[in-house]
Amino acid sequence: MSDSRGARMSRRGLFGLGAAGAAVVGAGVVASNTLLDEAPVAHAASISDPFPFYGEHQAGVVTPAQDRLHFVAFDVITKNRAELVELLQEWTAAAARLTQGKEAGSFGAVGGAPEAAPDDTGEALGLPASGLTLTIGFGASLFDERFGLAGKRPAALADLPKFPGEQLIPEISGGDICVQACAHDPQVAVHAIRNLARIGFGKVSVRWSQLGFGCTSSTSRAQATPRNLMGFKDGTNNLKLEDAELLRDQLWASAQDGSAWMAGGTYMVTRKIRMAIETWDRTSLAEQEQIFGRNKGEGAPLGKQAEFDAVDFAAKGADGQPHIKADAHVRLAHPSNNSNAHLLRRGYNFVDGSDGLGRLDAGLFFIAYQRDPRKQFVPVQMKLAKNDALNEYIKHVSSGLFACPPGVRDAGDYWGRTLFE
Amino acid sequence: MSDSRGARMSRRGLFGLGAAGAAVVGAGVVASNTLLDEAPVAHAASISDPFPFYGEHQAGVVTPAQDRLHFVAFDVITKNRAELVELLQEWTAAAARLTQGKEAGSFGAVGGAPEAAPDDTGEALGLPASGLTLTIGFGASLFDERFGLAGKRPAALADLPKFPGEQLIPEISGGDICVQACAHDPQVAVHAIRNLARIGFGKVSVRWSQLGFGCTSSTSRAQATPRNLMGFKDGTNNLKLEDAELLRDQLWASAQDGSAWMAGGTYMVTRKIRMAIETWDRTSLAEQEQIFGRNKGEGAPLGKQAEFDAVDFAAKGADGQPHIKADAHVRLAHPSNNSNAHLLRRGYNFVDGSDGLGRLDAGLFFIAYQRDPRKQFVPVQMKLAKNDALNEYIKHVSSGLFACPPGVRDAGDYWGRTLFE
Ligand code: HEM
Ligand code: HEM
Repeated sequence: MSDSRGARMSRRGLFGLGAAGAAVVGAGVVASNTLLDEAPVAHAASISDPFPFYGEHQAGVVTPAQDRLHFVAFDVITKNRAELVELLQEWTAAAARLTQGKEAGSFGAVGGAPEAAPDDTGEALGLPASGLTLTIGFGASLFDERFGLAGKRPAALADLPKFPGEQLIPEISGGDICVQACAHDPQVAVHAIRNLARIGFGKVSVRWSQLGFGCTSSTSRAQATPRNLMGFKDGTNNLKLEDAELLRDQLWASAQDGSAWMAGGTYMVTRKIRMAIETWDRTSLAEQEQIFGRNKGEGAPLGKQAEFDAVDFAAKGADGQPHIKADAHVRLAHPSNNSNAHLLRRGYNFVDGSDGLGRLDAGLFFIAYQRDPRKQFVPVQMKLAKNDALNEYIKHVSSGLFACPPGVRDAGDYWGRTLFE
Repeated sequence: MSDSRGARMSRRGLFGLGAAGAAVVGAGVVASNTLLDEAPVAHAASISDPFPFYGEHQAGVVTPAQDRLHFVAFDVITKNRAELVELLQEWTAAAARLTQGKEAGSFGAVGGAPEAAPDDTGEALGLPASGLTLTIGFGASLFDERFGLAGKRPAALADLPKFPGEQLIPEISGGDICVQACAHDPQVAVHAIRNLARIGFGKVSVRWSQLGFGCTSSTSRAQATPRNLMGFKDGTNNLKLEDAELLRDQLWASAQDGSAWMAGGTYMVTRKIRMAIETWDRTSLAEQEQIFGRNKGEGAPLGKQAEFDAVDFAAKGADGQPHIKADAHVRLAHPSNNSNAHLLRRGYNFVDGSDGLGRLDAGLFFIAYQRDPRKQFVPVQMKLAKNDALNEYIKHVSSGLFACPPGVRDAGDYWGRTLFE
């Protein structure tokens, strides 16, 4: 990155050349912000441009969903609180550079002393920022006795209950600290996580990590709705960055919520959900559509025409049955059936190879942001786990819950400062 | 895909909008073909465009390396030769459609009868062709007694010897049939493999599959050289599509080689090579450069200035030692030290999560094409396995060897026809 930007144009760098075109319909483009009464949301004019790192909230939440994910959960192995704070400061400095398309450290991959290990691993040299965002979260386990944080554990960070049917694998669940890296180029997302891991050597260890592609939920009305691996549009009725009032009510934690250090932060739930791809692919179109309650072509609610037509759960067909069945996914998950609980979904498709039984190991790495999981993810997922027609085709295999602190204000601030000071 | 192209523009579709820019330096662009005395090589003017499916050779070999990979190895489970041939015919028809940005079957994802399972899984609806190529290969195990092919096994498809230090995992090695899907959009590559698996249900079963990103080797002089996960430029001295004479000598099999059915085909070796990323990242810049024999910034041979300067293995530094050490990777692998054996490398980076020991499970999914592995991959790899300074940081964990038949001539032809008829 850094010194070579512009001078050399990498093969992948050419994704950035379409800036004029990208300004029309853009992954990195947000709608005019005249609707917003908060500060205008960060936006990149082309998909190779950077998003601002500093701000009231962390980037990577309402940021228009980028196309690739590298998610990592770390366990902290140092027992020393000061060392942990120092690491968070070093990480913040590196993240501020990486998200702007620079190398992780000022000695770079090739600019340092030959007898020293480079400050950057080098595989993103020549690549643009590619819309990279890095979003940190703290797991409940960080609030144990090790670092004196027990008294600061937010009530909203309550352990998730056991949900019917889940088959969680502990080794790929939980973690003390997570970092979500999203970018339009996987090499950029991987490079960022790997450099954070390098900087954390001896203080943290990688607990699990997950790659994803094709964000399955749009998070801005300026984005076309992408499709998940079941072939359906995903994100139609998502909470979006243009929903200023709902974001304030349902996404960002406030000082009044009980943990002042979380003001401006949010809570992230991750669920790795494996799909029975092969079984799904042999299911009829009519059944697939009934399971979701939307049609496959347009993504319209059953009984309606267009994707963004309002859902009408009372409407019935000629047979007297509701268009959208009692156990349809969108009926069960809709805010009107969940005390008006909304989620900002931001999950990614994954394919992890095959499972040794002749099947692809693939599905949805679900990520959802919200103000209080106890009132949002938990009741919605409890209802889905009990009744969703989709359950026949999915299996939850990993779970994570993280408190994402507010944004880093400026170069003197760092990830988690409000928690540690 | 199909009916919705143009009408809807997906989020990822915008990668295709930069056509004007992409024509300047392009993943999908090949140099003027005046140097070639063979038919002009397929090229796509923008990275969302299709490559031709029909031709003398299969696409996906000299095709300018696309950015994403989904590789799958199948075991054939039917015992019936006619059923296998029928599957190859069905696959060919689907591949001809998929590579042109159409759905896998004419009933599509949403156009068929509601009571039937769709002919396409739907997750690529609205996405352009994205330079998708599908390349098939037949493993040695296909030539056993099951299908009466034993007499047709090419001599060049001899089992690879055991190489020093390799730690192969049988479950992710070998396979009766492989398909390499390359595209600029992972969703398109995944969609293609998944639909082939769906079509093959009951006749083949997925043995293993691998996702990759950021092709680590350029295959055209019109492409900038990408970097691998060790941060080095990879592909500088690769066999490239502009090397018409070398391609004839060293890439494409001919009828004179002993197996007439392979004329116009080629042999593919795959090696999944895990990197000790964390150890590498703590190695000094000087040592990293000595291991490869090239510098990290420019990719220039040590002792030279620019990436494409000719390598001089005799040149010595002020200390009287050769600039490029005896155990440097490029010295050992260079054609001049291997009876002029060349390889067309076309590998991809992989990150498969973490390994349960706090480390990223990442490295290079090496793919190399050649006319005869006995004279090319095998001697080069034997030398590397014994002497390469790089060995301290890598481990070969899977291996594959496949005979890739010639290209499909037209809609009446199919993958492997010359083998079966
Ligand atoms: C593999 C698992 C899942 C798949 C394939 C899936 C797919 C979908 C699809 C296709 C839609 C309709 C389009 C849209 O509005 O986005 C949808 C809606 C929704 N899903 Fe899921 N989903 C999955 C799991 C979950 C989970 C675990 C939750 C939360 C606990 C969830 C919450 C929602 C919500 C809140 C909506 C919006 C409903 C509405 O307001 O209309 N989904 N999902
Ligand atoms: C993780 C494993 C490997 C890494 C990181 C790696 C990396 C590199 C790099 C950085 C170069 C120099 C740039 C270039 O000319 O492309 C190179 C050259 C080369 N590599 Fe590898 N390589 C690996 C494994 C292999 C294997 C297994 C083979 C074949 C058995 C191989 C064959 C070659 C050849 C033929 C060259 C060109 C040498 C020349 O003509 O100058 N490499 N490799």
